[in-house]
Amino acid sequence: MAGSSYGTLFTVTTWGESHGPAIGVVIDGCPAGIPLSAEQIQVFLDRRKPGQSRFSTARKEADQVQILSGVFNGKTTGTPLSLLVPNTDQRSHDYSRIKDCYRPGHADYTFDAKYGFRDYRGGGRTSGRETIGRVAAGAVASLLLEELGIHLTTYTRSIGPVQVPASTYDYFCIHKNSLYMPNLEYAQAAEDYLKTCMEQQDSAGGVIECVITGLPVGIGEPVFEKLDARLAQAILSIGAVKGIEIGDGFAASASLGSSNNDAFYIEGNEVCKRTNHSGGVLGGLSDGSPLVLRAAVKPTPSISQPQQTVTNDGQNTTLIVTGRHDPVIVPRAVVVVESMAAITIADLLMTNMTSQMEHLKKFYK
Amino acid sequence: MAGSSYGTLFTVTTWGESHGPAIGVVIDGCPAGIPLSAEQIQVFLDRRKPGQSRFSTARKEADQVQILSGVFNGKTTGTPLSLLVPNTDQRSHDYSRIKDCYRPGHADYTFDAKYGFRDYRGGGRTSGRETIGRVAAGAVASLLLEELGIHLTTYTRSIGPVQVPASTYDYFCIHKNSLYMPNLEYAQAAEDYLKTCMEQQDSAGGVIECVITGLPVGIGEPVFEKLDARLAQAILSIGAVKGIEIGDGFAASASLGSSNNDAFYIEGNEVCKRTNHSGGVLGGLSDGSPLVLRAAVKPTPSISQPQQTVTNDGQNTTLIVTGRHDPVIVPRAVVVVESMAAITIADLLMTNMTSQMEHLKKFYK
Amino acid sequence: MAGSSYGTLFTVTTWGESHGPAIGVVIDGCPAGIPLSAEQIQVFLDRRKPGQSRFSTARKEADQVQILSGVFNGKTTGTPLSLLVPNTDQRSHDYSRIKDCYRPGHADYTFDAKYGFRDYRGGGRTSGRETIGRVAAGAVASLLLEELGIHLTTYTRSIGPVQVPASTYDYFCIHKNSLYMPNLEYAQAAEDYLKTCMEQQDSAGGVIECVITGLPVGIGEPVFEKLDARLAQAILSIGAVKGIEIGDGFAASASLGSSNNDAFYIEGNEVCKRTNHSGGVLGGLSDGSPLVLRAAVKPTPSISQPQQTVTNDGQNTTLIVTGRHDPVIVPRAVVVVESMAAITIADLLMTNMTSQMEHLKKFYK
Amino acid sequence: MAGSSYGTLFTVTTWGESHGPAIGVVIDGCPAGIPLSAEQIQVFLDRRKPGQSRFSTARKEADQVQILSGVFNGKTTGTPLSLLVPNTDQRSHDYSRIKDCYRPGHADYTFDAKYGFRDYRGGGRTSGRETIGRVAAGAVASLLLEELGIHLTTYTRSIGPVQVPASTYDYFCIHKNSLYMPNLEYAQAAEDYLKTCMEQQDSAGGVIECVITGLPVGIGEPVFEKLDARLAQAILSIGAVKGIEIGDGFAASASLGSSNNDAFYIEGNEVCKRTNHSGGVLGGLSDGSPLVLRAAVKPTPSISQPQQTVTNDGQNTTLIVTGRHDPVIVPRAVVVVESMAAITIADLLMTNMTSQMEHLKKFYK
Repeated sequence: MAGSSYGTLFTVTTWGESHGPAIGVVIDGCPAGIPLSAEQIQVFLDRRKPGQSRFSTARKEADQVQILSGVFNGKTTGTPLSLLVPNTDQRSHDYSRIKDCYRPGHADYTFDAKYGFRDYRGGGRTSGRETIGRVAAGAVASLLLEELGIHLTTYTRSIGPVQVPASTYDYFCIHKNSLYMPNLEYAQAAEDYLKTCMEQQDSAGGVIECVITGLPVGIGEPVFEKLDARLAQAILSIGAVKGIEIGDGFAASASLGSSNNDAFYIEGNEVCKRTNHSGGVLGGLSDGSPLVLRAAVKPTPSISQPQQTVTNDGQNTTLIVTGRHDPVIVPRAVVVVESMAAITIADLLMTNMTSQMEHLKKFYK
Repeated sequence: MAGSSYGTLFTVTTWGESHGPAIGVVIDGCPAGIPLSAEQIQVFLDRRKPGQSRFSTARKEADQVQILSGVFNGKTTGTPLSLLVPNTDQRSHDYSRIKDCYRPGHADYTFDAKYGFRDYRGGGRTSGRETIGRVAAGAVASLLLEELGIHLTTYTRSIGPVQVPASTYDYFCIHKNSLYMPNLEYAQAAEDYLKTCMEQQDSAGGVIECVITGLPVGIGEPVFEKLDARLAQAILSIGAVKGIEIGDGFAASASLGSSNNDAFYIEGNEVCKRTNHSGGVLGGLSDGSPLVLRAAVKPTPSISQPQQTVTNDGQNTTLIVTGRHDPVIVPRAVVVVESMAAITIADLLMTNMTSQMEHLKKFYK
Repeated sequence: MAGSSYGTLFTVTTWGESHGPAIGVVIDGCPAGIPLSAEQIQVFLDRRKPGQSRFSTARKEADQVQILSGVFNGKTTGTPLSLLVPNTDQRSHDYSRIKDCYRPGHADYTFDAKYGFRDYRGGGRTSGRETIGRVAAGAVASLLLEELGIHLTTYTRSIGPVQVPASTYDYFCIHKNSLYMPNLEYAQAAEDYLKTCMEQQDSAGGVIECVITGLPVGIGEPVFEKLDARLAQAILSIGAVKGIEIGDGFAASASLGSSNNDAFYIEGNEVCKRTNHSGGVLGGLSDGSPLVLRAAVKPTPSISQPQQTVTNDGQNTTLIVTGRHDPVIVPRAVVVVESMAAITIADLLMTNMTSQMEHLKKFYK
Repeated sequence: MAGSSYGTLFTVTTWGESHGPAIGVVIDGCPAGIPLSAEQIQVFLDRRKPGQSRFSTARKEADQVQILSGVFNGKTTGTPLSLLVPNTDQRSHDYSRIKDCYRPGHADYTFDAKYGFRDYRGGGRTSGRETIGRVAAGAVASLLLEELGIHLTTYTRSIGPVQVPASTYDYFCIHKNSLYMPNLEYAQAAEDYLKTCMEQQDSAGGVIECVITGLPVGIGEPVFEKLDARLAQAILSIGAVKGIEIGDGFAASASLGSSNNDAFYIEGNEVCKRTNHSGGVLGGLSDGSPLVLRAAVKPTPSISQPQQTVTNDGQNTTLIVTGRHDPVIVPRAVVVVESMAAITIADLLMTNMTSQMEHLKKFYK
């Protein structure tokens, strides 16, 4: 498949540019019979919508989703869901000055090299607006997962150097601050840090953490479609993400086997683990513990400081990027990370149903 | 596709268990006309072969590869390459005691949950021997890449807490120490650390770094098949890997836009970057700088200390894993990381050839 | 991939129901730099539009296509093309009476069995209107092919028992009769036949033939992605098609090797064939001769005669299908067959570019 | 995927050339828990083995299959099945004279054009021996289907002009004649016809019919992965097949809607059809009636008569193909058609399990 599709059975295809008439997604393979309304999808889209705080772009977009197919009498029909969000605030004149030169940290140069030219208006296909399609699909996947008791909690673990210690997490705070941090004090410190960044016409990055509970054991397909491998593809396919780790991740590399192994024990009739260094994945399959992943997000490349760069006819130049930009995209990317995780898990849950002949027999007899 | 295949045009399908008669791989889509011999593949396999140092398992395997199809008169024919390595040292009695209980840190429990039972001999399909197929395919991919001037350098960046500072890298040292570290002094320190681990019947992890030079600009497919996203899937599909980062990775999340952006400049007629925080990827496409990735490898889960665990009929128990195990798998995993990177890049190089109508016109006219 | 996507590099995903707000398609992997306008696509859509003759449904649809993404400054950008056609004439009350019973020859019963319920308005996803997305994508594929000198000619070979003898073909007639037959006399006979059918509240089928010229030699991928195999999937994925043949097809099965083999000879520097029993495919690859395929289209299942059938709660009943229906869909299906063939060939042309290492070397050096 | 793989969840990858050391197949995604032995697979392979009658090649191959992975304690494990058949009778000197010229009706020319050169020994990858991998995989698929009560019956419907009338079918005769015809008298007439062909150094084709009973309703995925579309790809991917039809096929194109529609009725609680013109497929999904497909097989292109052709350096020449060839491949292709049908249905049965949210709920709760 060309690169705009993702998933084997629950397949998501996004389309659309920042400054075209609309952005959208087609979801194919969604099971029939899931209650679905535009309002439910809108809840997810509103989490990534610009203009929710002083730290996000002033671009004004209603980002109202329309369901064009795949729902009948309030339920999914099993046929493709086509979801569309019109672009309403397309000030393309803002971008004319970057038409001929390559913004550092952006894909202008690489797109020109690959395609011979590019839609230079607002990043075109590489705009953050492309993630609208992902989030709309993520909403559908999340509703599907919720019917099975699977729940995703996603939040900002750090902004720049301000990191919330895991011991102080309070999930009830996540939606009570515009940075989606699980601790209001650290959220305040992060806001202060961001204000300084903005004063200096600079930008910040951060780390997003996603915890998934209720996963059945055994989800994921060996060898190349391991649960963690597929999540890694999904999460690194998000524009600004530069790294992912599962469970203890990079810290595990400095640990010892004796402390990194999670001991099993029996509780009731359940196999449990005393610790969760594995982050809920063993051998690429879910192990019944909460799945924990972290995504490293780089600082927004669009800054208003003058930057050295080149033009597409090979001249050195200095560029000042104006226009509307987020000093940090981490808070808006929280729901994007959650969406990509939800889509991945929905897909692998479906594939897993055929792992044993007994399952086929029960189904067909 | 079920999980044992990887790649769109350059497709790799591995098969085989630790204690079956053989392990192998089918490579489909390899272009015709590449000179290829078993000896060239053997060079790669020998890099992961057990028994190269005191830090690897005593299992004795010749790991001699046979080419069963796809080569005629010393060149690839464009038809599938079938590569097979016999398993010669299958002491399956070693493993009988773990038949009924779940080894911590291994996939015993998750495989039983998924498939209803498992091949308990030596990890079955989750054995490190599965990577033989990957390395054989990686050898072919690397030869393909070399014909295009693309070169991969892979090494051990850290073992446990012993990390080689980037400023002290000397690539000429990599193949002069059994840990494949780019600095002999640090390699010695790492060996000392490992000896202590072994004395304590414990195991260690580490970080592997891979640097790819000579990549054309524009490789990768937006949106979901980004170069870094595909590499992330590829690398996390390796058994013990718990994290990946590209360029500055997690460190970038604490950086500022002004310092993380890589300034462009013109040298000769080339677009160059003054720094490489991006690790050679912008917008998911290669940017002409060396691609830099790091993989976090967890400590080998097989240790000889007694461990708490459960049996598959739901009893708590204590397990002592005996048998032949590596105290650290990082050195042998170096070539596996390189192989997965090479396979991914070969695949995306091929897909990229159709990005412009001009390319089709030149090709067909 | 779930079933609404088709193609490996040139990937088409259709969505939409007969009575939803719109019908559409996403084309991913279309090379950058192809001049493309809505008008060019409209030409193809107009060929399948209802109301062109007395033999097609009275449903009035403008079927005006909109390009929502993937084109910038009049050229494709290499990013997904999203094409949308609003449904304007959705008289869903026409269909209320078939809500609870299964129309013979339609997919009502099988969809209910698969999905638990169905969008019963006008066939929902199984409506002929689904082919709008295919034809829009076929237009793009055809424009791509035309830039390479590849041309498709498609026409009605037979309607019911009225078959145009190959010896009397006159391609200039194809667009001069509403049945798209390559002979005006036979077209008249077919019209007479159809009038009788209509008087008897009955319907007819026919055979569509497609001839593709200008194909380079070697297109198609052994083993399962052979050119003819892929065309067979593509053509049989069209609702009413019940058979396909390539070249002499079923007649070849009664022939002798000595007469069915096409002798090669040299003309100029070209390898030519004295005959074309193979229909332009040898070993699943294009052989330089015109590719010839034929699709058998069954009679329209919607007829106004009373028919025996059952309700979805298990009662026998008699059904009279009213509403607007084509007495024959063959003429409107001509452009659908052409579209599916064009999409398939565009896809395989792209894949073929990587068959030799020499090609990669030329491309990247 | 490159062309040697087929299937989404039940994935088959074949490899191997006529004159290499071995031929094989990897089956990925086969559910765990199916009892499987080499003997069971051998039964299928023996049906395509050469030397069963005077009408097949004198090439002597034991075609003994080995299971290299994926089975433990007599059952499939859910991991890839690797099946291998050694090539034992590789008289490559027989083929040296065709090294430099293109055999009419074969893929020599098209392979040279695509890959730059070819393995000219016995057809290389285009040899009929490639189907060994398909048949081995088909055996596994058939065993899977049999556990669900799905059964395939495949036979020779016609040889050259000798066609068994459907009204005279006696399935008990199929395995009582070397042509696998369902009527011994017609089998005798076909043998007489073939003797004449052989005396004239000529070859014959025929039609193979496959009937599948026990299929659940609703198998197949709209739109492009329809059951009949996928079967069409599968069957036309077999070397010598030039056409396929489902149910009434091409005859339906000359029929009327009133006679081609199959009336539904209720029997017990089952929805039944009074006729089966549809061949068991409605809207691309199985409709509960027996699935009926027919494949047109061209005459064997290898004949001993002198034929006009060209050399690969562009000279006209006359060729006499010697070596060991079947005067008709239809009987040996019967099991290949059955295998491809079985593989396709196994794959689509698995995909179908996720069509409703209710199915996921039952499975996971």
